[in-house]
Amino acid sequence: MSDLRIAVLGVGVMGADHVARITSRISGARVSVVNDYLPEKAEQIAAAVPGCRAVADPLDAIADAQVDAVLLATPGPTHEKQLLTCLEHRKPVLCEKPLTTDVTSSLEIVRREADLGVPLIQVGFMRRFDHEYTALKTLLDGGELGTPLLMHCVHRNASVPPYFDSSMIVRDSLVHEVDVTRFLFGEEITSIQVITPSASPGAPQGLQDPQVAVFTTESGKHIDVEVFVTTGVAYEVRTEVVGERGSAMIGLGVGLVRKSAPGRWGGTITPGFRERFGQAYDTEVQRWVDAVVSGVNVDGPGAWDGYASTAVCEAGVKSLQSGRPEPVELDERRA
Amino acid sequence: MSDLRIAVLGVGVMGADHVARITSRISGARVSVVNDYLPEKAEQIAAAVPGCRAVADPLDAIADAQVDAVLLATPGPTHEKQLLTCLEHRKPVLCEKPLTTDVTSSLEIVRREADLGVPLIQVGFMRRFDHEYTALKTLLDGGELGTPLLMHCVHRNASVPPYFDSSMIVRDSLVHEVDVTRFLFGEEITSIQVITPSASPGAPQGLQDPQVAVFTTESGKHIDVEVFVTTGVAYEVRTEVVGERGSAMIGLGVGLVRKSAPGRWGGTITPGFRERFGQAYDTEVQRWVDAVVSGVNVDGPGAWDGYASTAVCEAGVKSLQSGRPEPVELDERRA
Amino acid sequence: MSDLRIAVLGVGVMGADHVARITSRISGARVSVVNDYLPEKAEQIAAAVPGCRAVADPLDAIADAQVDAVLLATPGPTHEKQLLTCLEHRKPVLCEKPLTTDVTSSLEIVRREADLGVPLIQVGFMRRFDHEYTALKTLLDGGELGTPLLMHCVHRNASVPPYFDSSMIVRDSLVHEVDVTRFLFGEEITSIQVITPSASPGAPQGLQDPQVAVFTTESGKHIDVEVFVTTGVAYEVRTEVVGERGSAMIGLGVGLVRKSAPGRWGGTITPGFRERFGQAYDTEVQRWVDAVVSGVNVDGPGAWDGYASTAVCEAGVKSLQSGRPEPVELDERRA
Amino acid sequence: MSDLRIAVLGVGVMGADHVARITSRISGARVSVVNDYLPEKAEQIAAAVPGCRAVADPLDAIADAQVDAVLLATPGPTHEKQLLTCLEHRKPVLCEKPLTTDVTSSLEIVRREADLGVPLIQVGFMRRFDHEYTALKTLLDGGELGTPLLMHCVHRNASVPPYFDSSMIVRDSLVHEVDVTRFLFGEEITSIQVITPSASPGAPQGLQDPQVAVFTTESGKHIDVEVFVTTGVAYEVRTEVVGERGSAMIGLGVGLVRKSAPGRWGGTITPGFRERFGQAYDTEVQRWVDAVVSGVNVDGPGAWDGYASTAVCEAGVKSLQSGRPEPVELDERRA
Repeated sequence: MSDLRIAVLGVGVMGADHVARITSRISGARVSVVNDYLPEKAEQIAAAVPGCRAVADPLDAIADAQVDAVLLATPGPTHEKQLLTCLEHRKPVLCEKPLTTDVTSSLEIVRREADLGVPLIQVGFMRRFDHEYTALKTLLDGGELGTPLLMHCVHRNASVPPYFDSSMIVRDSLVHEVDVTRFLFGEEITSIQVITPSASPGAPQGLQDPQVAVFTTESGKHIDVEVFVTTGVAYEVRTEVVGERGSAMIGLGVGLVRKSAPGRWGGTITPGFRERFGQAYDTEVQRWVDAVVSGVNVDGPGAWDGYASTAVCEAGVKSLQSGRPEPVELDERRA
Repeated sequence: MSDLRIAVLGVGVMGADHVARITSRISGARVSVVNDYLPEKAEQIAAAVPGCRAVADPLDAIADAQVDAVLLATPGPTHEKQLLTCLEHRKPVLCEKPLTTDVTSSLEIVRREADLGVPLIQVGFMRRFDHEYTALKTLLDGGELGTPLLMHCVHRNASVPPYFDSSMIVRDSLVHEVDVTRFLFGEEITSIQVITPSASPGAPQGLQDPQVAVFTTESGKHIDVEVFVTTGVAYEVRTEVVGERGSAMIGLGVGLVRKSAPGRWGGTITPGFRERFGQAYDTEVQRWVDAVVSGVNVDGPGAWDGYASTAVCEAGVKSLQSGRPEPVELDERRA
Repeated sequence: MSDLRIAVLGVGVMGADHVARITSRISGARVSVVNDYLPEKAEQIAAAVPGCRAVADPLDAIADAQVDAVLLATPGPTHEKQLLTCLEHRKPVLCEKPLTTDVTSSLEIVRREADLGVPLIQVGFMRRFDHEYTALKTLLDGGELGTPLLMHCVHRNASVPPYFDSSMIVRDSLVHEVDVTRFLFGEEITSIQVITPSASPGAPQGLQDPQVAVFTTESGKHIDVEVFVTTGVAYEVRTEVVGERGSAMIGLGVGLVRKSAPGRWGGTITPGFRERFGQAYDTEVQRWVDAVVSGVNVDGPGAWDGYASTAVCEAGVKSLQSGRPEPVELDERRA
Repeated sequence: MSDLRIAVLGVGVMGADHVARITSRISGARVSVVNDYLPEKAEQIAAAVPGCRAVADPLDAIADAQVDAVLLATPGPTHEKQLLTCLEHRKPVLCEKPLTTDVTSSLEIVRREADLGVPLIQVGFMRRFDHEYTALKTLLDGGELGTPLLMHCVHRNASVPPYFDSSMIVRDSLVHEVDVTRFLFGEEITSIQVITPSASPGAPQGLQDPQVAVFTTESGKHIDVEVFVTTGVAYEVRTEVVGERGSAMIGLGVGLVRKSAPGRWGGTITPGFRERFGQAYDTEVQRWVDAVVSGVNVDGPGAWDGYASTAVCEAGVKSLQSGRPEPVELDERRA
């Protein structure tokens, strides 16, 4: 019943998000240790989390006796050594992508973990947990579209930091579609081509943006991906799978839309209030818990709101019988 | 740092949901006591939650020394006495609607809480925490639509239990739109009319379904609500607010859609990956935490997936330079 | 084979549209006579249409020997006398709404036409010819939604002329939903209520805008209609029919959307290129005909475009065989 | 004022459509001559069109003194000789694609027409007249998206005839996107690659379906096109242009949707009733003209409908004043 104690390594934007997530939204876990190559950053984060310390050396943080598991949000080049340390100490680790920055070291990690005979490493390809991608996976696995043949992807960012170069478009952006392809189809990619159209006049000098990648898989599926990271518009991720007997698209902002019956397109409606308002219930209860813990007790509609709605409904039932409009009269409200 | 200890009273569908929610998705709280008018139901639920006991009497559960706060998911007729007990023991309470089943007792609760001089009661109108309703509220408060004038609502269920009668359509279904009206416009409803068209041939004998309610508010706004609880289709909740300078609708399955510029309609796109994939990150980390706690360590992409994606990206960077398709070669995968 | 000769009475905005329509888009008819209470307006229109004259008196225009049929686009108060003249001369007439401006004279017209034993009068409720309304009618008649129970309508204009008053919102705007109700359900309206919420601050002083109308029909169906004529946004017409076994909506800009299977919503895709591009073919041929008649011969892609596309396809077929990109080389283009 | 006399050569599906179109929907033109390689087919069509004859030889049909212009809907291999005959007789011709079936003969046609110094040939790429494509062209020309960089196209058919082979997918289907590319961007295509993924198990043996084509243009734009002609679903044509400052898509069934402001997506609403119901007015008047010509006089709402709607509106105005529901009473309707 005691919480899982997690060390978060790297508390930049992504790592700090994870600290906040584990501290305020995840059940059964807490952050016991943080580390960053900027020690003051780690100290500052640790100070805001009850029961959390900063540890200066990442390998010490992994080995720490008060750490049950590790979340790696450090820069890619440091992953190899940190992952090997996790394996050495048999600590489960959630590693933000990439596993490592080159194939040789990645393969070495795979072999070392295999030698241990126990899985310890999970990689942070978060799209596999997105409800649209999981709905698409379920649809494909169910066979409604027949054999999948093609996939068209779009991956756009409004902007990128100044240090972003052409190969990072492949390694940092396109890598998500690489994983999506492998996840959805359950097979390996056998070749890749990166096409370079004329660069956008709006892209920084020297950045090959947009790029179009073409993958081929073991069974001969074709996947194309537009990656365009300086659109100025927003973050847009869209995926359409085309199968033998229909197609389905996610990322239009309307959930999963399928075309698999002759002449028909459509989506699904949530069957009940729990599916429709599940997020709202979670938020309501989390905010209420936080309000009670902080001593204000209420963060939402109060007793007066309950009273007023009961009064309206009582008049409504009267109108249901009378067929006429019925007045609603409320007591004077105390300040 | 110790968790808020919550008593959940009533562990039917809704209460059991809340127990699961607090146990597995809410940070900083746990269920210490459950109660139900069916004692074996409470025992069964308690057995599945670490550190949780069943308490036979609801008022004893409220008073229990190991209970910091109460979540009421009991039938409406029992609320009055239970809420009064919460007030007596100064225990914060989240009360599923209705506050109580009649105006007189609701007003009494309001007065008793006011006498204490401290807010203790929150009512479970969860739509106020739904991202579409909050987006609509933000839009209205921002003034982009000018003065709100009208609201059209639709509230449909596929089906209802056999005991559902015509007045429950008002008290249990329509009540949500009563609260939505008060929440969005910040004013009281002054009259209500319930219109009864010919009943659906598909509705149970004697059930007046659908119903159309018309509200008027203090400032003269008009609200109409279709409530139709036996559609056979799905759960559909749609709300359109029409203001002096435009309109906005939620519930079409595409987020909030507004029409407030001449000749234009549109919605918003998430600005970045954190907004787009926030739910996915939460799910990923919660499932990883659960996997580590249970000892399987990995519940998602593993080291091999990290290796394979690195290999594809490395070939991609090569293709970016060569302009040609490049093969991807992977090591033999061990079982 | 000679064209039907039509007199258009009233050549304001609507009548002038009809003259242009008959002259340039309608097969088998031409405008032989125009009339307007502003004689110079009629003269000006007539001068632009080959074979068309202005006739000063509307009743003379109806009686004219070179007039086979009449299109009335005159103000409503003049309809009664003009329709009676059409009946007297046995001339078919397409009368823009309203038939006449009061019930007594409308009924008199109905009786006089019935006495003649031959139908001569058609009323210009154009929505019955709109593809979305006809799709909705077909859906309802097919029974997929079961018994229709409710209809929700929205009818919005960006603005109205200064002379528009509160009763014109009923007579000129709402009248379309009156006809839509009668058309879709094939039954008469038995009562009407017009609800007046607080007027929009943006509406002209004294104009009750918006209005909400509620109709009841012979079989007890409920119809509600929002009419709001000073939204500042655009022209929006939306109609949702709710039946015993599902609902369907038009006017969202996506054709007809239905919800009639459990948990599913959707629309239709055009089955073939003729349905998808029918309008394009009509426009293409009409513009080509006009270009040939005017002597320029071509109004669209020319021989070079045909040549260039053949060259690309020939290279495409080569690539289909070679699997490689193939260059496309075109001849020098002469000025 | 006399109608343009058109010879339609080839009266298969497409040619017969054109005969019907010119006869019943196009103003200012009529079909005076038809020809087909099946003489009985031509005779049958001619018999149904007033003033139309069948002519056995296509070149005679072109030369016929009662033919002002020619519409070619014959098989591609016959186009070269027929077009040369049109040029020889200086007859304007609308030629269904392809211009001719090979580059050499297409170029020859281009040169011959250029020698005459007068344009005579238009090619039937009808998408240039589709309202979605013209809206997209207008958007691009207006510069809102900045420099266009990429285009993604989808072109799907439910099924194709048995004789359809892999190269016809290029020549008959893909050719439309070839023209769309040249039309939208106003530049030539410089290379083409046709990619062949694993064929659909649902495609006929030996048919390479789907295909993915990649075009490069003079300025380095990238265009990719999925062509899939045996989807079993419907006819789907979708086009997305991605520019330096935003993107726009047509073919989703919602008109043109653009994303060109930070974080926003949207479309347009018709400004007024003439734009919204233009098609309905055209259909209404054409059907009324046809009804009058055929002697039935009315094909739509009649005098009774006008009377009934006036009665409802009169009661509505009364309710507007009384604030109460008002009954609508109609006269007995005569059979």
